Amino acid sequence: MKRIVTLTTDFGTEDHYVGVLKGVILSINSEANIIDITHSVDSHSILPAAYIIKNSYSYFPEGTIHVAVVDPGVGSDRQAILVSYDNHFFIGPDNGIFSLIFSSSSEYEVFQLKNENYFFKDISSTFHGRDIFSPVAAHLSNGVLPSEFGEKLISPQIIHLNEYLKDESSIKGEVIYTDKFGNLVTNIPSGEVGKNAKIILKNKVIHGVSDFYSEVDVGELLAIRGSNGYLEIAINKGDASKLFDEDKLDIMVRS
Amino acid sequence: MKRIVTLTTDFGTEDHYVGVLKGVILSINSEANIIDITHSVDSHSILPAAYIIKNSYSYFPEGTIHVAVVDPGVGSDRQAILVSYDNHFFIGPDNGIFSLIFSSSSEYEVFQLKNENYFFKDISSTFHGRDIFSPVAAHLSNGVLPSEFGEKLISPQIIHLNEYLKDESSIKGEVIYTDKFGNLVTNIPSGEVGKNAKIILKNKVIHGVSDFYSEVDVGELLAIRGSNGYLEIAINKGDASKLFDEDKLDIMVRS
Amino acid sequence: MKRIVTLTTDFGTEDHYVGVLKGVILSINSEANIIDITHSVDSHSILPAAYIIKNSYSYFPEGTIHVAVVDPGVGSDRQAILVSYDNHFFIGPDNGIFSLIFSSSSEYEVFQLKNENYFFKDISSTFHGRDIFSPVAAHLSNGVLPSEFGEKLISPQIIHLNEYLKDESSIKGEVIYTDKFGNLVTNIPSGEVGKNAKIILKNKVIHGVSDFYSEVDVGELLAIRGSNGYLEIAINKGDASKLFDEDKLDIMVRS
Repeated sequence: MKRIVTLTTDFGTEDHYVGVLKGVILSINSEANIIDITHSVDSHSILPAAYIIKNSYSYFPEGTIHVAVVDPGVGSDRQAILVSYDNHFFIGPDNGIFSLIFSSSSEYEVFQLKNENYFFKDISSTFHGRDIFSPVAAHLSNGVLPSEFGEKLISPQIIHLNEYLKDESSIKGEVIYTDKFGNLVTNIPSGEVGKNAKIILKNKVIHGVSDFYSEVDVGELLAIRGSNGYLEIAINKGDASKLFDEDKLDIMVRS
Repeated sequence: MKRIVTLTTDFGTEDHYVGVLKGVILSINSEANIIDITHSVDSHSILPAAYIIKNSYSYFPEGTIHVAVVDPGVGSDRQAILVSYDNHFFIGPDNGIFSLIFSSSSEYEVFQLKNENYFFKDISSTFHGRDIFSPVAAHLSNGVLPSEFGEKLISPQIIHLNEYLKDESSIKGEVIYTDKFGNLVTNIPSGEVGKNAKIILKNKVIHGVSDFYSEVDVGELLAIRGSNGYLEIAINKGDASKLFDEDKLDIMVRS
Repeated sequence: MKRIVTLTTDFGTEDHYVGVLKGVILSINSEANIIDITHSVDSHSILPAAYIIKNSYSYFPEGTIHVAVVDPGVGSDRQAILVSYDNHFFIGPDNGIFSLIFSSSSEYEVFQLKNENYFFKDISSTFHGRDIFSPVAAHLSNGVLPSEFGEKLISPQIIHLNEYLKDESSIKGEVIYTDKFGNLVTNIPSGEVGKNAKIILKNKVIHGVSDFYSEVDVGELLAIRGSNGYLEIAINKGDASKLFDEDKLDIMVRS
């Protein structure tokens, strides 16, 4: 059956692991249209994977199946799950990787992946992407019902991004994601920040929110409304992340 | 409608941006066959992207739609365009990214992308790949006519590669592209260089043009007729780019 | 004709070379489903490519066509071949790249690629991926018989991984592959190693084989049964390859 299956992993693209996932899926459903979101999540880093999935899934058609494998607990007693939410399906380990998407809603269902009829023939303890998640995704894409894979899981693992704090005169937030361009994505919704706000990061102050990158000179720092709805810090034709080397970067916005 | 859409960007593959482009396209045309050319163009570097598109588009079937997004001027008043040339279509910013292909011809048409009916619902000022170029490509792949996206643009932006210079006894050129192997691609057509020519780069001299890499010893520098029709400098099983660290590398050929 | 074609190369994904392969294939068979295994094989390194193909091909459906291009001898008198084995097809240079798959069997056929009717129009001496391997793969996917591409080759090039050595009390092996996670894959089959074996690498000793990574503390070294059937050395949530900097790493297992 024609169906889109997306992949988000920390497997990298140097080895054969991603190819193997695709082979397993296509062996079960030759009509699957497999789309890579990314395989470059930092090894074992669940939060950035969760951020990526949250910010990409809804651009795909309804019915799309999203497989995510960042799975340091593979082989332990962590559950494997299928989440049905917002007319999309999500398959991966129960380690919170999907929880940024559905945690603020009650309109989701989570199923345990237990039915070995839908698994790869021999299940390893190190590669459930191949042995469980890919074959389950492929069978789901062929029309198998979510409930056939296992019973419902009532309390899936939830992870959280830190929330921004707001008082009368200021907003305190932080950088939650750094992208390939070195743009710093904050947890502060763009709608909260006035055009003329003063944005303070460490020892830098940015006056006002730009409408587009080239509004400031090349090499100059700016704040901008990012494409996912959050305030971003960038450098026109440059890499803002290189200005800051802390693991956690606080942002203060004053109106 | 079954149709090939290629993607060339500087988005990298670490983030979700490329996945989002694909989701948007497939939401409009589920039959689109999306092929990555590369997403590893140096951030904001239009010329190498232009080189890559010039040297890849014609290997695809006629009717293929080539989307290119290296777009430091996104959100400013730079135009968004659709180019029709040589039975291929090209969609991206009007910053010269397609101009190496069509600039020496008069057989092209350029249309402005203005008709918001074919755009994503909300248009950001930072991600026109998602909001304009991908949806326009998808609608074009569904059979929408180029002229429906906007009026013709008479004078698109043009960029140029430096030309080689030739006199009676020598050719002066330069390296215009360095590939993953460290091979140095020059702007000198192979046909201009005799088998026994003397090729001079900085303080190195190469005697004669090799027919294949392993004609010289491992680690030895050679000149060779490259697969795109230009003279290339390479090292057998090595990386020629590591021998030279200048931004601009001149080549002199003596017959 | 609907058919899967996989690609394994050392081309990288920075340039247009992989896109060109896909354009050539789709120009001949628009129904081909092209799947990347990897393009990040170290330049000119045949052995890791051979390892990757050996460990991925069988996850694809029967009839899949696997193109591999790590080809330092391109343009010389090395042969171009098509291998038929285990209901899969393999196309690439005759430099041993497929030989880990079929060398222990007699149930394979190798054909030379000689029939220029199935090549790209002009054959370069540097890019047979584009000019020979891709078009041959595409024509094969359209139903052309293997024997139509050329005569049989009786003695294809064979390469070998070093074998492990076993005596009454110990097994001597070595690391044959390091993956993206820094996991060290050995040439010792997991079945040969008892649960309580003592595993010695250089100056480190690991007591026992773990069932899953998170069985040991974060940052701790472990031995584990890898997903391809071989003993692997890893660090829970870490990179075992960073502990060792030798090119060749011997492993000793004592029961």
